[in-house]
Amino acid sequence: MPDQPRVEFRTAPERYRHWRLGTEGPVATLTMDVDEQGGIVPGYELKLNSYDLGVDIELYDAVQRLRFEHPEVRTVVITSGKPKIFCAGANIRMLAASPHGWKVNFCKFTNETRNGIEDATANSGQTYLAAVNGTASGGGYELALACEHIMLIDDRSSAVSLPELPLLGVLPGTGGLTRVSDKRHVRRDLADYFSTKAEGVGGKKAVQWRLVDEAVPRPRWDEIVAERAAELAARSSRPQDAAGVPLTPLPKARDDDTITYGHVEARLDREAGKVDISVKGPQNDPPASIAEARQLGAAFWPLAVTRELDDLILDLRTNETELGTWVFRTEGDPALVLAYDELLRGSKDDWFANEVLHYLKRMLRRLDVTSRSLIAVIEPGSCFAGSLLELALAADRSFQLAGVFEDADPNAEPAIITLGDLNMGPLTMSNGLTRLQTRFWGDEVGYEAAAKRKRDALEAEDAADLGLITFAPDDIDWDEEIRIATEERASFSPDALTGLEANYRFVGPETMETKIFGRLSAWQNWIFNRPNAVGPDGALRRFGTGQRAVFDRKRV
Amino acid sequence: MPDQPRVEFRTAPERYRHWRLGTEGPVATLTMDVDEQGGIVPGYELKLNSYDLGVDIELYDAVQRLRFEHPEVRTVVITSGKPKIFCAGANIRMLAASPHGWKVNFCKFTNETRNGIEDATANSGQTYLAAVNGTASGGGYELALACEHIMLIDDRSSAVSLPELPLLGVLPGTGGLTRVSDKRHVRRDLADYFSTKAEGVGGKKAVQWRLVDEAVPRPRWDEIVAERAAELAARSSRPQDAAGVPLTPLPKARDDDTITYGHVEARLDREAGKVDISVKGPQNDPPASIAEARQLGAAFWPLAVTRELDDLILDLRTNETELGTWVFRTEGDPALVLAYDELLRGSKDDWFANEVLHYLKRMLRRLDVTSRSLIAVIEPGSCFAGSLLELALAADRSFQLAGVFEDADPNAEPAIITLGDLNMGPLTMSNGLTRLQTRFWGDEVGYEAAAKRKRDALEAEDAADLGLITFAPDDIDWDEEIRIATEERASFSPDALTGLEANYRFVGPETMETKIFGRLSAWQNWIFNRPNAVGPDGALRRFGTGQRAVFDRKRV
Repeated sequence: MPDQPRVEFRTAPERYRHWRLGTEGPVATLTMDVDEQGGIVPGYELKLNSYDLGVDIELYDAVQRLRFEHPEVRTVVITSGKPKIFCAGANIRMLAASPHGWKVNFCKFTNETRNGIEDATANSGQTYLAAVNGTASGGGYELALACEHIMLIDDRSSAVSLPELPLLGVLPGTGGLTRVSDKRHVRRDLADYFSTKAEGVGGKKAVQWRLVDEAVPRPRWDEIVAERAAELAARSSRPQDAAGVPLTPLPKARDDDTITYGHVEARLDREAGKVDISVKGPQNDPPASIAEARQLGAAFWPLAVTRELDDLILDLRTNETELGTWVFRTEGDPALVLAYDELLRGSKDDWFANEVLHYLKRMLRRLDVTSRSLIAVIEPGSCFAGSLLELALAADRSFQLAGVFEDADPNAEPAIITLGDLNMGPLTMSNGLTRLQTRFWGDEVGYEAAAKRKRDALEAEDAADLGLITFAPDDIDWDEEIRIATEERASFSPDALTGLEANYRFVGPETMETKIFGRLSAWQNWIFNRPNAVGPDGALRRFGTGQRAVFDRKRV
Repeated sequence: MPDQPRVEFRTAPERYRHWRLGTEGPVATLTMDVDEQGGIVPGYELKLNSYDLGVDIELYDAVQRLRFEHPEVRTVVITSGKPKIFCAGANIRMLAASPHGWKVNFCKFTNETRNGIEDATANSGQTYLAAVNGTASGGGYELALACEHIMLIDDRSSAVSLPELPLLGVLPGTGGLTRVSDKRHVRRDLADYFSTKAEGVGGKKAVQWRLVDEAVPRPRWDEIVAERAAELAARSSRPQDAAGVPLTPLPKARDDDTITYGHVEARLDREAGKVDISVKGPQNDPPASIAEARQLGAAFWPLAVTRELDDLILDLRTNETELGTWVFRTEGDPALVLAYDELLRGSKDDWFANEVLHYLKRMLRRLDVTSRSLIAVIEPGSCFAGSLLELALAADRSFQLAGVFEDADPNAEPAIITLGDLNMGPLTMSNGLTRLQTRFWGDEVGYEAAAKRKRDALEAEDAADLGLITFAPDDIDWDEEIRIATEERASFSPDALTGLEANYRFVGPETMETKIFGRLSAWQNWIFNRPNAVGPDGALRRFGTGQRAVFDRKRV
């Protein structure tokens, strides 16, 4: 798979090859029915409802559309369209043939989609129910684990299992271990036993060990699934008669050097190993009400810019692995950004405003776990305010120009940043804190001093004193400082930078999400790199060949 | 370094080659003065106060002795005996030449020793002060970070730095990143900048960024260090006139097949890839008072057995990397174990009892982070009670015989386990929870049901029903079940087991310690395995050759 084609994340239900999305009143059913011949790259068949990145891209799209296009949906049933098998997890031949970076990136996206499923359950009143109507193994069970309620068909053959360790010599790496222990509270010794037993656990024992919520005999299956779906729907506060907001096709122009959307443009600088990303603020006043915003639909600026950034992050992460530094700039009127923020914040009881805010939150979280160095460059004419200031707060470093560019535009207004309501609450990181709280972790005084300046236009010196930016060079040093920062970044070991950033970005408390990205993924990445898994005699490479793996038995 | 000699962790101040330990009333001074020729294996010189495992073994010994042998010591000043250099960190040639497992094991032990320094500060009234009288780079600064108060000499040349990333392409892996962000609360962007700047930061800026607590000009250095040491000493509640307890040489017989101490014996089964570890309970009633216990000194059973297990864990971890499963058995009278526990628990205001309890806690934490599968086997005649029951609660799986061995000893008392006070509080894991709380994380009812049975002798069926053990086979299945469990373990990928155990052992909340072992170490292990660090053109291998590293620039 060394020369994989460029991956495109935009899709729509009419183009799905692997999923069927149906809705019936408040209950949607997402049926996994993977096309064996539909692998995203050649070289393997997606047997037994196993998946690859392409299957997951469709799932992500479906989860997004359910939130925006289907306000009426309150329960989402995930089930299988194949007999006897729910899902066999990530395709093993695909994993075995993939380069290290592809595996890691694939697992990250899969984890993000599953966190999105949990986010919909927690915050959108769309509760996911796993109707496990056949065997769910590995990533198949991990998909079920992302659902709020797991029903397993009790037919003496169906089971849930995490066979990665015994069969492949790797971990269940898309959240499985963390969700078994920290979400479902399976006792650690039972979890250990379960994760070494390739055939898994079914029936009453699976319920008793908390691996699933209920085991249901086949004759009553359809009836009880419908009953549970209705029960979960009854808990929801989603609106009854609202019209959905269609996620119309995202306009995007892409060539080797630029990626252009309506509000976002990326210039790819292969020489320097960096991407210059420019985000445009809104051009007009916000609509007068959230109802009018809903009419604008996918054209509503906060939704449009979030979709564009989300797609850009995924595109660059997957297709441009050698561009290690992303430099963010913004352009526009800070007051307009804050006005849009205010409309959203003031309408948070509205289902659509709620969805936009959570999407913005999730897009920013995706940025946080991206293995690229992030730099924010704050110049005159920029609009790092409120929601867009989050890009600077997410960055590993930020530079704000002190004064103006004397030669180019001596009469410009100096660059400013502005804190708004959206920096103080809803856009939490995976660690449960806002980026502002994370920045001032252990420094209450610093936090309060900054928070008190909400809505003030902060020039570079003020922003630096308050600790909201990293450096405030003036015109004379500006180009040189930014050039050095990006060149230096490009000279360092990309792996060490990834490790450094993964540690420094998430201070303070931990959540299931930070554990999945910070701990589980780090161990999995290590294992994915070890000869015991991926060497010529390793378990992942030998799986299915009839030959046993040969291990270096040294414990590290 | 492929054929390194067997490493021995027992030492004593009169044999130190790298440290001087002096005390003057309440202040001890630990002076690092590394013997360049004193590397633990040949092939490198320990220049500039750089260290290897041998240097760290002496530091660990000194930290232990200060706690037990010096009740009068309230402040420990760590400083350098070399001019202009405090400590240059782990020796780079040693790291570059070491196999992966050696590096990982070395970092783990170093981390544990630094956690021990923090434990002495927090729990023993022995506060560590880093008197950084020259440049502290990499692991040298990480050593200072483990101290409560960091003083840096302000002489325009001394600085603190973490140059691993720019110079070596690896992370500061012995707690540095975590302590910078989570302990010292250095702002994340400043931390990022600091960790990419090889020359580091000194003087007032180091104070302003919170990297050190104060910068002191050379002329007033000695005076102000003494002043701070006295201030820290004044806060302590350690006793004034108590006599220390000498840590007399630990008796140990070691050959290729067995390791024998007074109360602990290990049989090394290379064929099966396992170690059978047997721990003897106390032979006699406990002393009548903690004062009498102190008279017994190192012979006092809880201290003796803790020292033996501590040494055994270190020996096996370092020297027997292919023995992947440790099987724990105990032998003795559970009532006597509980009686000793009670003496300790009832005397927790006594400095000696306090030290023994914290040592027991730290030894068990060392077990928790050991990359070996742990199995507890509970048979008739065993004494898994209170403190020794922690061995079973630390295990990945436990087996308790239901009934007795009908042929061998039909009249025996059945195997029991007993919960005691020490399972309910002081012996917390790195996550801040007891092993019992960890076991029942998310299951309050289960925890309460088990806790209510404190002091009851629980036979296998009861113990299994309460969830305190994993399996309770009877005589007929016993040998077979244990044989299968250990054989199966030996057939799995050792790397995948390490990852699995590292995830399942620490459920729930996170602390700086769990972050260091679970997240920082996992990323570092990944990086330690990557060609960008350890390949022929990698940064770690090329350091000092005058050639620049060549990186695969793909971000993973």
